[in-house]
This record gives sequence, structure tokens and C-alpha cells, in this order.
Amino acid sequence: MPHDTIRVGVNGYGAIGKRVADAVIAQPDMVLIGVVDVAADWRTATARARGIALYGTEAERVAAMADAGLQPSGDFDDLLRGVDVMVDCGPKGVGAGNADRYRGAGVKFVVQGGEKHEVTGHSFVAESSYDEAIGRDCTRVVSCNTTSIVRTLTALQRAELLRRARGTLLRRATDPWESHLGGIMNTVVPEPTIPSHQAPDARTVDPGLDVVTIAVKVPETLAHLHCWYVELARPAGRDEVLEAFSGSTRIERLRIDQGLGALNSVKERASDLGRSRSDVYEVVLWEDLVTVDGSELFYAYMVDNQAIVIPETIDAIRALSATERDAEASIANTNAALGIARSFW
Amino acid sequence: MPHDTIRVGVNGYGAIGKRVADAVIAQPDMVLIGVVDVAADWRTATARARGIALYGTEAERVAAMADAGLQPSGDFDDLLRGVDVMVDCGPKGVGAGNADRYRGAGVKFVVQGGEKHEVTGHSFVAESSYDEAIGRDCTRVVSCNTTSIVRTLTALQRAELLRRARGTLLRRATDPWESHLGGIMNTVVPEPTIPSHQAPDARTVDPGLDVVTIAVKVPETLAHLHCWYVELARPAGRDEVLEAFSGSTRIERLRIDQGLGALNSVKERASDLGRSRSDVYEVVLWEDLVTVDGSELFYAYMVDNQAIVIPETIDAIRALSATERDAEASIANTNAALGIARSFW
Amino acid sequence: MPHDTIRVGVNGYGAIGKRVADAVIAQPDMVLIGVVDVAADWRTATARARGIALYGTEAERVAAMADAGLQPSGDFDDLLRGVDVMVDCGPKGVGAGNADRYRGAGVKFVVQGGEKHEVTGHSFVAESSYDEAIGRDCTRVVSCNTTSIVRTLTALQRAELLRRARGTLLRRATDPWESHLGGIMNTVVPEPTIPSHQAPDARTVDPGLDVVTIAVKVPETLAHLHCWYVELARPAGRDEVLEAFSGSTRIERLRIDQGLGALNSVKERASDLGRSRSDVYEVVLWEDLVTVDGSELFYAYMVDNQAIVIPETIDAIRALSATERDAEASIANTNAALGIARSFW
Amino acid sequence: MPHDTIRVGVNGYGAIGKRVADAVIAQPDMVLIGVVDVAADWRTATARARGIALYGTEAERVAAMADAGLQPSGDFDDLLRGVDVMVDCGPKGVGAGNADRYRGAGVKFVVQGGEKHEVTGHSFVAESSYDEAIGRDCTRVVSCNTTSIVRTLTALQRAELLRRARGTLLRRATDPWESHLGGIMNTVVPEPTIPSHQAPDARTVDPGLDVVTIAVKVPETLAHLHCWYVELARPAGRDEVLEAFSGSTRIERLRIDQGLGALNSVKERASDLGRSRSDVYEVVLWEDLVTVDGSELFYAYMVDNQAIVIPETIDAIRALSATERDAEASIANTNAALGIARSFW
Repeated sequence: MPHDTIRVGVNGYGAIGKRVADAVIAQPDMVLIGVVDVAADWRTATARARGIALYGTEAERVAAMADAGLQPSGDFDDLLRGVDVMVDCGPKGVGAGNADRYRGAGVKFVVQGGEKHEVTGHSFVAESSYDEAIGRDCTRVVSCNTTSIVRTLTALQRAELLRRARGTLLRRATDPWESHLGGIMNTVVPEPTIPSHQAPDARTVDPGLDVVTIAVKVPETLAHLHCWYVELARPAGRDEVLEAFSGSTRIERLRIDQGLGALNSVKERASDLGRSRSDVYEVVLWEDLVTVDGSELFYAYMVDNQAIVIPETIDAIRALSATERDAEASIANTNAALGIARSFW
Repeated sequence: MPHDTIRVGVNGYGAIGKRVADAVIAQPDMVLIGVVDVAADWRTATARARGIALYGTEAERVAAMADAGLQPSGDFDDLLRGVDVMVDCGPKGVGAGNADRYRGAGVKFVVQGGEKHEVTGHSFVAESSYDEAIGRDCTRVVSCNTTSIVRTLTALQRAELLRRARGTLLRRATDPWESHLGGIMNTVVPEPTIPSHQAPDARTVDPGLDVVTIAVKVPETLAHLHCWYVELARPAGRDEVLEAFSGSTRIERLRIDQGLGALNSVKERASDLGRSRSDVYEVVLWEDLVTVDGSELFYAYMVDNQAIVIPETIDAIRALSATERDAEASIANTNAALGIARSFW
Repeated sequence: MPHDTIRVGVNGYGAIGKRVADAVIAQPDMVLIGVVDVAADWRTATARARGIALYGTEAERVAAMADAGLQPSGDFDDLLRGVDVMVDCGPKGVGAGNADRYRGAGVKFVVQGGEKHEVTGHSFVAESSYDEAIGRDCTRVVSCNTTSIVRTLTALQRAELLRRARGTLLRRATDPWESHLGGIMNTVVPEPTIPSHQAPDARTVDPGLDVVTIAVKVPETLAHLHCWYVELARPAGRDEVLEAFSGSTRIERLRIDQGLGALNSVKERASDLGRSRSDVYEVVLWEDLVTVDGSELFYAYMVDNQAIVIPETIDAIRALSATERDAEASIANTNAALGIARSFW
Repeated sequence: MPHDTIRVGVNGYGAIGKRVADAVIAQPDMVLIGVVDVAADWRTATARARGIALYGTEAERVAAMADAGLQPSGDFDDLLRGVDVMVDCGPKGVGAGNADRYRGAGVKFVVQGGEKHEVTGHSFVAESSYDEAIGRDCTRVVSCNTTSIVRTLTALQRAELLRRARGTLLRRATDPWESHLGGIMNTVVPEPTIPSHQAPDARTVDPGLDVVTIAVKVPETLAHLHCWYVELARPAGRDEVLEAFSGSTRIERLRIDQGLGALNSVKERASDLGRSRSDVYEVVLWEDLVTVDGSELFYAYMVDNQAIVIPETIDAIRALSATERDAEASIANTNAALGIARSFW
């Protein structure tokens, strides 16, 4: 292993954890030591089938994994002894509960957006807060919705175009593999408060954002879709706005008139391009919807909720490790390893 | 039949036409002479089962109805000879095509929101444009989405609270009885232009409205849901805004914390209250979502797309007939006949 | 109140309870004394809006109802004191838990199909087991799926046509008003055992039935659909089979070629016919699917899971009360009161 | 290119065509010369992004592709001149229309199951009819549903266990990327005839099969699910039946109690295992549902409708080319190249 190689462990081999594991494996400067989980079923068996070392959360789980023929490599503490950075992808609250354990073991750690900002005291979106995270003990990659909000509004802000943003978030109701939790059928369910939690969450990354969100759950499993009403800092041309969005390497512009005017066709394209698990790491902005009227801007984009935080997590690992002190260089490396922005259009 | 009774015919016994027919029957000052349709299947058979006189669009259709045992009363022209007002509920374009026929027969007529404003030169929402329609030859009841926009924004405007409104429209993808046309599965589809057509359409009723909409099709059949970002003319209190909305008798306030925080539970309540076809004629505003921050107002409501234009259509009939010259009186009579605002909360 | 009027109470004002309440009100020989429930929200408020007397399960609930302005008439025991028969429509297990309470109060009772046969020692489908239930203290109306199986197979059996039946049950995943429990999205979920429980359950009504079922949950909320492979006792003609099905007054034959070839169009027709809550009390057999090949019979039908047990429950009340000792007379009275078999085809 | 390498072309880069293209690329003994299509949008652009040579159906299409920057390699005839075998994956009827063109060009061809048996006079499922296809000019790979029926019933037949089979087919309503064609919402739609067309279609491969099917469209996009009622030729043990199913290398046994008891979790596992486009080429038989009672057998399985015919198509190419005269060897090679039966369980 080269001297600088970052040794990474993942807690929780679920929707996010398994993607983080694959993405770590894809980075030349990282090595996946293993994943720790509670399950001894098809999910962890799949990890084994892919050659990933498996650890149980505790002795009992290790034994169950052994019984199931999954050849566990040890328990949680065994994994902690071998890693530089842990990425905690457990369900909400698990990362917070493990924080002291990571600190006690002298292991840096990344938690996901289900945890509160206070768990790490720092919230991460690569294009906004990489520099602050360099060398820290821990950080929190914000949720998929918040990541997309910060990516897009930061891009407008850098071009000095943003005054305030008001957005509607159409949230996919549950994950595609999940049959029983959170499923809604033939209905639409608004979040019970305005603003929904994503707007204040975006301010944990950039306290200067003037943003309000209304969130609504819709009966599909693929991705979120956001609609935005932005007041610009000054009247601007449409080209100027598109140029501003180009400031982010993780916003892809597609067009409805290309036949890509729905969540499912964009996912199919990702699948056709050979993306692992059909993942769309980019915010997909519909270019032909971007509309400017004086100092008002309107647009809509898609957020692949299982995928968008994966490149951010990779950058967060690198920032904590301080092996790469240049945000742009880290982002470029992550993008290259994951195939981001290799579009043909 | 009392001297003032308005004799009404309906063209098209579909989702809107059958509701208009029932609503006409429910008015003490109207009589339904009959409905004209092309079909000789279960749909028109149901009309007959309910005792409604049936007319075929042309001789061939009349014969088919006779063959099916539906005892048709005649053809389109036969119906025209017996009515004062026709309500055209045919598919998009049919009303426009029939306009000259109605004019030639000296019959006043109402078209639905699928037709262009130019077909009648007048667009109708009872609380906004009843007076203008009194004694006219024809008018156009605007679409369900537009009706809800005009109802709510007019209410704010009357209270001198409205500066401008920006809204996201989540549209149900197809009607609940329809299996094959327009169905989308596990996806979300944005309309291909911003603003979507509803905003300019609202200005056919009130040209002064400053309104922009983004519309998105979601995979459910029950109703639309709108989310709004309004800039008030001045800072206002939340109670003042709620009071303004109370200015419309066709906005009902329900609460998420009553267990009514989704499209399907609101529809179930309508069914439980004995509403015909579970229809919700009111804009259902979630009171606990109404949020005011200085001069900004946020809210969301539900639009039962099959039902909301029915009371408007009844008022339109009355306005054209000029039998009732007081908008408020007509609205009150329609509401009473349809059970609007007889809520128990 | 006439001497013979049966005084009925309902426990649980949910999907079944509210329908039973309405159906009791519709019977000339019954009176609804009241419903008992735990909730003080929109659901029980709706009961009050319809003029139904409300009782709380216990003092605390009564107080909560009073606080909510629902004017409760008393508690569970108060209701028991005023009724001859209780229909327990509480969630699974509640009826079993209340059985002794009903017995202690000297009140006859009906439980629903979520309860085990053993709770009452008798299982009820009107056309099969009315006679056995006359004068009993209690019975159990079997589930919607089982009711449809017994209705249809009993009809074949009476015509001495049935040897054995094998069926696939496509089950609606959750109720239309329910957003969160049991929703499945874009998937299909087979029951984990073959035979599924409905086949043995059908034998609690008729132990002689040779029936096996496979059940699969599908992502819709409207109704169940059953597909059947029947081995006849002897080769028969198609007309003979249709005649056999006509032996049940609660099987309605509709046709796909009438435009009624899907769950949602059949429900729409019920709504158009003015059925309360769009309820379809009948097994809807698609006549044009009924296929006979020698001694093999194939068919498919629809089961409106919220509605089909309602007429059975009414007959069960009458059987327990022993006010009507003729099954056919009770069935005819129930059918007339609910509008069953008043079809126009 | 080695002497024996089969040069393959694909007509139609849709759901099946793009998978066939990828599968051809994955075979050591085949080379993909190119694909021909009508579109110059994101779909064909994706082909180009993956390095696949693109041909237009006619001059006009070639020009449109050139205009879109897709660098077409020529037209349909140009492609025909360079290939040994064409796989026609166009919409229903296109393959029939092209048959003479292929014959005229001296190119062997495979059509898909949307075409009639008569188009080629031979219908193909590798484990049943490979031998017959060796050296033929053309064959037809039967549809996904029929392929699964033949695979499973052939396995039972080889073990001399099959007498007759009766099955219910729950069909996914439309493809996952498709928003507008064939979508059904919150309903279930039975096919209008019994038997549905799949049963007679299975007999185009094996005329001796005694099979009847009822098909029902359900509102999901992932896969089909079949439930079977089989009369065995003699009473058998459950192990014997499982052993019989093991006779096919393209039936995978998974278990509900592993957490894989639904279409979506099985698809997720395929994605997790790194399968291209999450494809499941195998019939997935739920082992814990396989139930034997005397001489009756019951089971259910899943059919990934976009994937299951891909390995069959590869074998069909090989059979026509007569480069491999041993069915088992071809099947084994195809399986190895596609990762079939590399399961970890």
C-alpha cells in the first residue's frame, strides 16, 4: 500500500454504505479495509460476493455471520484498529452514537446527513466547505436534498447572482428496494411544517443563504425533483446564469427535448452509460427549463438521492485525512474515478 | 316547470359532464333536459340508470344507443331545441367546434377550461367575474388548476395583501377511472416550459395578477397539490392572511394535525361525509401550513381536479341566464345545493 | 321503535365499521344505537356530522371526545346496555378481546374476518351458513377474500359442478385512505407460504371445499382480483356454469367489452350509480373471461375488499337475532336496502 | 478477428437491442459490428458514448445522426454487408418486415418474441430447441413470459414429472424508462381472453406442453411474477421437484426468508452484484414457496422481462452460425460471459 493511501472503513452496508464502499474502492489513493454491519442476510452476502471484508457489530453478529458462511474478519473494534477514517452510514442516530467510539479509537470519521450538525460541528459539501474540513477529526456530509441545494445556490453565489431562493422539493417516498417502510400509494403528502428542514440545514454549510423550502412526498422511488424561484442580486441574462451553474462540476445539464424529461429516463441513461447501480452523482439540471425574467430565475432539477452524496463523502474522507489540501484537485480526482462529467453531450 | 327555471343540456357525459349533470339536477332553479354523447357503453347506460334523458351526437349514434337498449330521446339538434343553456364538456376542442352551432340555435353556452379564452371571449370564476358574465351569450369556466389559483389569489387581493405569487403545481397524472391514457409509473415529469400555462390562464380572468407557475406531473390519480410563495403587498400577521382566505366561501381550511395531511385522507373524508362521488368542490387549504414571515407568505392546498369547477359551472349557467344578478346570492345557492361549507369543524 | 327492531352497536368506526353503520341505518328492521371508538379526530367527527351517536371506549376517551366538541353519548358499557347485537370492527384481535365482555353483558355479537374462527366457533357467509347461525350468540363474518371464495364456489357446488379449485389472489396492498401502513411501491410481494391462509379459512365455512390459494400483494389500493382454475365434477357447458353462478344474488356479471375491464372502471361505475362510498358489494365476475374446456373452468373476478362483507354482516345480525329464519328472505331484504343487483345490464 | 468469430449486427437499440449489443460484446466468439436505429437522440448517443458503431435505417436518418454529431457508419445495407447474423429487436412487426431483406442479403437472423412463429418457422429456447436451430437461416427467440414457462416446464418434463400446468401471470405494465405508453395507475387489468397468448406460444417451442395461462397487468415496472398449479405425472417428493428445476442452469433459487421476497429486492441484489443494468437473466424461483402435495405442485417465480431473453438470443446466434453444435457448451459459454449462476448462496 503506498504511503499516502487512506485506509477506510464503512459502518452500515445499506443504500449509502454500499455505494461509499464501491466509491472508496474506485479511488487510487484509498483502500477499503472492510464494512461492519448487523445483518447476515443477502445484503452482506453480496458484499462478500464482491470480495469485501465483513465485520460484525458485536460478537453475536460475528458468530451469526460465521454461521451463514460469510467468513467475517472480526468485530467493530477490529475494523477500527485498521482504519484511518470511518464513514458511518448507519440509520439516523447511529453515527451520533458511535462518535465517541471513533474518537476514543483515534479514528477520524464522516457521518451522513441523517445526523445533526452538532454531532461533528461541521457540515460538508465539497465545493463549499472542503477547506474548512482539512485535517479536522470529523465532518458531516449533508443530506441529498441539502447537498443539491448548496451545490446549485453556491454556484449562483460565486457568480454574485444570488439574492434569495424559494424552492419546492418533491421527495421520493421510499427507496426502490424497500417494500414496507414509508411506502405511500396513490397520494401526495406534504411535510407538516414550512419551511421544511432542508432550508435551515443548508445554512449549516453556508449561514449566509436566504433560502426557504416546502417539501412534499410523492409516490415514486427513483429520485427527488426540486423547483426553484430565485430572486437574483441583479437582472441577468440566461447565458450568464447557465455559465454560473457551470461553475460546479457536479451539475449536469440535460434537455427535455433530448427525450430526457422525466426522472426515469434520466436514470435509464445512467444505466445505459454503465454507471454502477445506475447512479447519478450529479444534480441534473434541465437546461431548457432554466428561465430568466429580469431579476427572477426559475429552474428545476433532479436529485438521485442515493447517489449524490457519494462523491461528497469521498472528498470528505480526503479532506479529513489532509492528504490533498486543494479542494479542486480532490473534486477532480473523485469525479474522474466515478465517471462524473464524462457526458457525451 | 316554474317560469324562471333554466333548461340545461350537457354535451359529453365524461368526468366533468356527469358531475355537471348531477349538480344541475340538484339546483332548485334548473332542470336537466338531457345529455348528449357518442358512447353506447356502460357510461351512458349509467346515465339512463339514473333517469337522465340521453341524446346521440348524430343519427348513427342514436341508432347505436337504441340498439343497446338505452332509449335515446333524440339527437344533438333535438336537445338544442329544448334548452336555454348548453354546457359543453367534450374533450379539448369539441366546445370550440360546437360554438357556432350553439350560436346558430340561439342557445347560450358554457365551455370548459380545455378550450381557449378566445372561444367565448370571457373566462369565468364565480368570485371574480360573475358580474361580467351576466346576460352574456357564453363564457368559459377555467381549468381546475386555474380556478384554484384565481380563488385563492383573489381572496388575498380583496384584502389588499397580494403583490406577486410564485407556485409549484403537482398535477395528478390521469383520472382515477382511466387505465391507459396519460398514466405514468414510478416517475415524475415536469412540464416542458416555465411558466406553465396556468399562470397566463389565470390572467384571462384577472389580467392584474402577477403570477408564475411551474407544473410537474406526479404518479397519482386523486388530485392536484399546489405550493405557493407569495410576496405580500405589506408585512401582515398570519391571522390577517387566514381572514383574507375566509373571504372565499369555496376555500375550506383543514389541518394536518387532524389526520388530514394527505390527498387520500381528505378524499376519504369527503366520501365519509356522503359527498357525491367523493367530490371536494373546495380548495382545501392546510391551515397549519400557512406561514407568514414579514411580507412573505407560504402555503399549500389541494385541488380535486374533477370537482372544483362544478360549482363554478353552475354559477356560470345562472350568470348567462341572468336570472340571478347578484353573484353572492348565486354562489350561496350553489353552495347550499352542493353541500359546500357545511363542514363540522 | 317497532317491536322487532334490532338494536345494533358498532365497535370501531374504521373502513369496515363505518360501512356497517351506514348499512344498519339503511335496514328497515334495524336501528343503529351508536358507535364506539378511541379516536377524537376527523373520523369520529364525521360520524357526528352524519348524526351518529358516539361512545368512547373508556372514560378518558369520552373526555377527549367531549373536549373535541364531539358530544359523546357515553362509554362502551353505556352502549352495551342499549343494544341487542354488537358488531366488532376493531383491528385484528380486538374482537377476540371483547368477546367475554359481550357475553357478560348478554349481548350477541359479530366479529370480522381478522379474528380466528375459534373466537365464535362459527364462520358466516350468508348463502352458505345463515341457517346454522340462527339464534346463536355470536358468529364471525369471514374476510373479504374468503367471502368471495365461498360465494363463488358454493354457487358451483349447488349446481353439483365443483370438484376442486385452485386460485391466485392479487391483493390490494393497503386501503385507499391509508398513507403509511403497508404501502408497497413499484413491486409485487408474494405471501410467504402456499397455500395462503384464505383456502383453509374457506373451509371454516364449508369443510368440504377442495381449494388451494396463492396470494400476492400488488401495488394498488382499490380491490382484490382472483384468477381461478377449477376442475369440474363433470364436463359442462359454459351456459351451465354461468347459470350456476347466477345462483348467487351477490355475484354480478359485467363484461370487459363493455369497457369495464379493470378494477378502476368498475369502481367508477359504482360511483356513477350513486353507490355509497363507491362500494361494490358484489363479486364482480367478468362474464367474457369465463372459459370452459371439457371439465376445466377458468375465470377471474374482482373483490371490493372494503364492501363485500357488509351485506354478510347485516345478514349475520339478522340470523343471530332470529327475527328472520329464512336465509333467502334476509338476503333479499339486505340486497334491496343496499341496492344490490339493481344493475341496468 | 479469429476465423470463427461471428459478426453480429443489431436492429433497434431499445430495451432489448441495447442488452443484446452488450451481451454480444461480452462473448469471446462474437463481435458487434454495429447497431442500426431511427433515433438521433440520447439513446443512440449513449451507444456512441460506449463506442458502438451506429447505422441509420435510411439516408435521411443517417444525415440526422450526422447532424447530431453521432458519426454514423452508414445505413442499414452497409451494416448488412458486414455481418453474419442480424438480431432484429425492433418493435412488433419490424422483424417480420425485414425478414426478406435479411434473406436477400444472405444474412442469418434472429427475431424477438413480438413476432409470430411463422416469420421464421422456428421458435427458440436454448434448453429446448437449440439442436433444431443449428445451421438454420433464422429463428425466433420467444417472449420473456414464454421463455420462463418453457424453461421451467421443460425442466419438470425432463424429470418426467409434468402432466399439466395452469398459471397466473402478473405482468409489469410498462418498462421502467417509459413514461407515457401503457402506464396504468392504481388499478389491475386482466387480459381479455383465457387462455392468454403465452400458453399457445409455449407450444410453438414444445407442442406437447399441456399449459393454460391467465394474464393480468399490474401497476409496476420491474418484472413479471408467475404463480403455478401443476399436476405432476405421479406423486413426488419436494426434493425431487427441486432437483428437477436444477436441471436448468437458468433457474436461480432464492429464498423469501433471506429477505428476497419481492421483485424489487431481487432486482436490488442484481444491482449489488454488479450485474449490467441490474439484469436478472435467470428465472428466480422462490425456493421456500415450492410446495408439493401428493401429485400437485405449487410455485411462484419472477421474470425480469428485459433480461431473460438475452442469453437465449446469444445462444440463438451461435446455433444459427453452427459454430457450436453442442447446446450445453453454448449455454455454458453464454452463462459464463454474462455471469449467470455465479451466485454466492
